[in-house]
Amino acid sequence: MDCVFCSIISKKSQAVHIFENEEFIAFMDKFPINPGHTLVLPKKHCQTIVDMSIEETGKLFGLSSHLAKAVIKAVNADGFTLGQNNGEAANQIVPHVHVHIVPRFSNDSEVGRWPSRKTASIKDLNDIAAKIRKYVEPISL
Amino acid sequence: MDCVFCSIISKKSQAVHIFENEEFIAFMDKFPINPGHTLVLPKKHCQTIVDMSIEETGKLFGLSSHLAKAVIKAVNADGFTLGQNNGEAANQIVPHVHVHIVPRFSNDSEVGRWPSRKTASIKDLNDIAAKIRKYVEPISL
Repeated sequence: MDCVFCSIISKKSQAVHIFENEEFIAFMDKFPINPGHTLVLPKKHCQTIVDMSIEETGKLFGLSSHLAKAVIKAVNADGFTLGQNNGEAANQIVPHVHVHIVPRFSNDSEVGRWPSRKTASIKDLNDIAAKIRKYVEPISL
Repeated sequence: MDCVFCSIISKKSQAVHIFENEEFIAFMDKFPINPGHTLVLPKKHCQTIVDMSIEETGKLFGLSSHLAKAVIKAVNADGFTLGQNNGEAANQIVPHVHVHIVPRFSNDSEVGRWPSRKTASIKDLNDIAAKIRKYVEPISL
């Protein structure tokens, strides 16, 4: 099965990581809505959260909220959204569960709209990830 | 403190409920993006998830994923998004933590855009909530 995210998890493909433990991994979105846009994933391949238990989903989002604190400090954001899309109809592009941590800045878009996605350089992603990693507090789930 | 959601939690204001336990409550959004749009909240007043522990956030989203399964069955959705906004910059309207369960239907909007919010009648909300409640499986958190 050709899953882009499974390929990153197994280190066959590269990504700019900020966190990894036995069950979860987090790395920078290559087409960020804003600087610091991070994805948090279960390593186990699940297409949507309908395939996950309540406990697994709870851990995934608990971890996402924890990492979001580091992300917003690193990029000095004014707010952030946790978003998780299930199914093509919900604009899920990669069919492997992932939570978006999207930092937001005052007036970064028209009201009620998302800012457009950008193409980030690997250098930019590495620089931001290095800052984020410094702010990630130890966690046990 | 005048919090619209605290007022609903204390039953001073009305809402169309689909779930309640000691710590959490879920009711229909009065201005749904799509039919079935539901809000899930901690009863404790927290402005953003930065004020919540990892465990509390995990429970909130675990419950949200559980309720989402009932919502999508009730409205026969093609997909759904869990979304949670923190701060005005992230388009958080009511400053009391809430998770949006947004059912999505194929081609319900322009690509990458949200459908517009509608004004739902209480009758419509009651009818949908009655269907959702039938699909909510028992849960212990």
